[in-house]
Amino acid sequence: MRIILDAFGGDNAPLEVLRGAQTAVEKDGLSILLTGREEEIRRVAAENGISLDGMEIADAPDVISMNDEPRSILKAHKDCSMAEGLRRLAAGEGDAFVSAGSTGALLMGATFIVKRIKGISRPALGSLLPSDKAPYLLVDCGANADCRPEMLLQFAQMGHIYMTHVLGRSDATIGLLNIGTEEHKGGSLQLETFALLKESGLPFIGNVEARDVPAGAADVIVTDGFTGNVLLKAMEGTVSMLMHNLKAIFKTNLLTKLAAAMVLPHMKGLKSRLDASKYGGAPVIGVQKPVIKAHGNADAAVIYGALHQAATFVETGAVDAIRAAVTPAKEEE
Amino acid sequence: MRIILDAFGGDNAPLEVLRGAQTAVEKDGLSILLTGREEEIRRVAAENGISLDGMEIADAPDVISMNDEPRSILKAHKDCSMAEGLRRLAAGEGDAFVSAGSTGALLMGATFIVKRIKGISRPALGSLLPSDKAPYLLVDCGANADCRPEMLLQFAQMGHIYMTHVLGRSDATIGLLNIGTEEHKGGSLQLETFALLKESGLPFIGNVEARDVPAGAADVIVTDGFTGNVLLKAMEGTVSMLMHNLKAIFKTNLLTKLAAAMVLPHMKGLKSRLDASKYGGAPVIGVQKPVIKAHGNADAAVIYGALHQAATFVETGAVDAIRAAVTPAKEEE
Repeated sequence: MRIILDAFGGDNAPLEVLRGAQTAVEKDGLSILLTGREEEIRRVAAENGISLDGMEIADAPDVISMNDEPRSILKAHKDCSMAEGLRRLAAGEGDAFVSAGSTGALLMGATFIVKRIKGISRPALGSLLPSDKAPYLLVDCGANADCRPEMLLQFAQMGHIYMTHVLGRSDATIGLLNIGTEEHKGGSLQLETFALLKESGLPFIGNVEARDVPAGAADVIVTDGFTGNVLLKAMEGTVSMLMHNLKAIFKTNLLTKLAAAMVLPHMKGLKSRLDASKYGGAPVIGVQKPVIKAHGNADAAVIYGALHQAATFVETGAVDAIRAAVTPAKEEE
Repeated sequence: MRIILDAFGGDNAPLEVLRGAQTAVEKDGLSILLTGREEEIRRVAAENGISLDGMEIADAPDVISMNDEPRSILKAHKDCSMAEGLRRLAAGEGDAFVSAGSTGALLMGATFIVKRIKGISRPALGSLLPSDKAPYLLVDCGANADCRPEMLLQFAQMGHIYMTHVLGRSDATIGLLNIGTEEHKGGSLQLETFALLKESGLPFIGNVEARDVPAGAADVIVTDGFTGNVLLKAMEGTVSMLMHNLKAIFKTNLLTKLAAAMVLPHMKGLKSRLDASKYGGAPVIGVQKPVIKAHGNADAAVIYGALHQAATFVETGAVDAIRAAVTPAKEEE
């Protein structure tokens, strides 16, 4: 198994990326193809005592940043480490690709370099998120702001395959994000998608309200990329606002500081349970090869998690299962 | 000032509704017209020592429930306490209407009995929500699942008037809920709305991400009713999930129970600060008279808050200001 890894993606590249890669080689026996400035990779590895055993390097002079137009990965930044990795993936020089770089550029590159699975209308970005029960997959969480019902049906089909194959959750359920649980709720997108999902043969449990998502209402939450992104960030923002307020409470006086010391170990457990990054990364689903987006501020542990998830993505044949199972959308541009 | 109050709206009607009304008469000197089953109102008031001084009753034999189709307020349930109140508001027998009953029925009734302000495409439901700074208005939070850009422009105009007039926030800013802060972010609805808001003369501060909303990113957050409802419920669900987990942590052992006792008073302060119901209610904006939706599980204090807000809605002439300021939408059905 050989995973291609963008050595210059994310806020902590290349050091943390290299550290994560080293763990994946040592722990999982993976072979890694790094893309990026070879000289800098070798220098950083040497300076930090990181062994490059089990890794090869494909030199790429450029880096695409969060501030670059996503589309520039196809032209102005076509020599960046991310584009190089995607081209090598498409050429069969590796089994999967992992990057912690710009989400927009990765989606653009995955769609136009690795290319869509035939019949898939739009690739989607899935996000594994923590709930009070098991983690669930939110799809789409930002790749497609404007969606049609058939796209949401495909997101459900792909999300279900991802959960059953890559996460081994054979009983994974599908819920449609909506503003009420009754069948007639929502706008035209939700009404039409509900009808499609009902007829799909998928384990569709109906509409799910945003308020029930954090408690684990369904294993795959299906929605358009605009709403999915709002949901994701609303939950993030609320957790961060509450944690910030709790910190202030614990700092009020000596008594509350003492209280903080007493609950601190438990709070850490909760914080870690709510940390989505530990699931490794967000899969780009609907393209011809496994592509995983790791969190932009990924450290070595998160990069390792993403590489591990990418390997499972490959081993379980989820891309072939999607290819076989998906209802082709009407042809379009 | 005379406020019409649905005595049979919400989970705690009529007892808590009557208690809230009594407070409004005694504290604010309001005159109240109660709608609902007169005999039951008089019996509950007598049994609980509630004075009906300053109140009149308009008998209405029926009650519309959360499970009834919203549209039934116009036909099958046209004799319910909510419909009776809205008809009397339209007829000029009161200055504003307050109900804790079904949101859908209230929106339907407000639109077709009280009627839209001329030029307003769709009335919207605003929700006053707590942030780390001052409360902000989320509009639309559920009245219109499918929206066009001109509707969002009107929501912004109406929301701005509501905040400056009713809440006295003369420096209120407008933010467009989006999945990134850059101007080119979002789907076609956001792109076109951004352009309209930029040209509107409103204090538009640009796109706001859901993650920054709880911290108080703008005073009016404009979005379609589908996304607004998802945002609202995602924040609610996340707070409730976290609070539930914190409770479990505090119950772990003797030490954590002791810690809980030390921070409890501060936690209560935070909980109260995050309790949206204390702002009284959600205004229905865009109809010819002030209409306020109080929370379904409103107690006497919340009903009083809603009556107080309704009185301010009347006194500040916000409806006339909306009538004067709004850009008429293209005529439609």
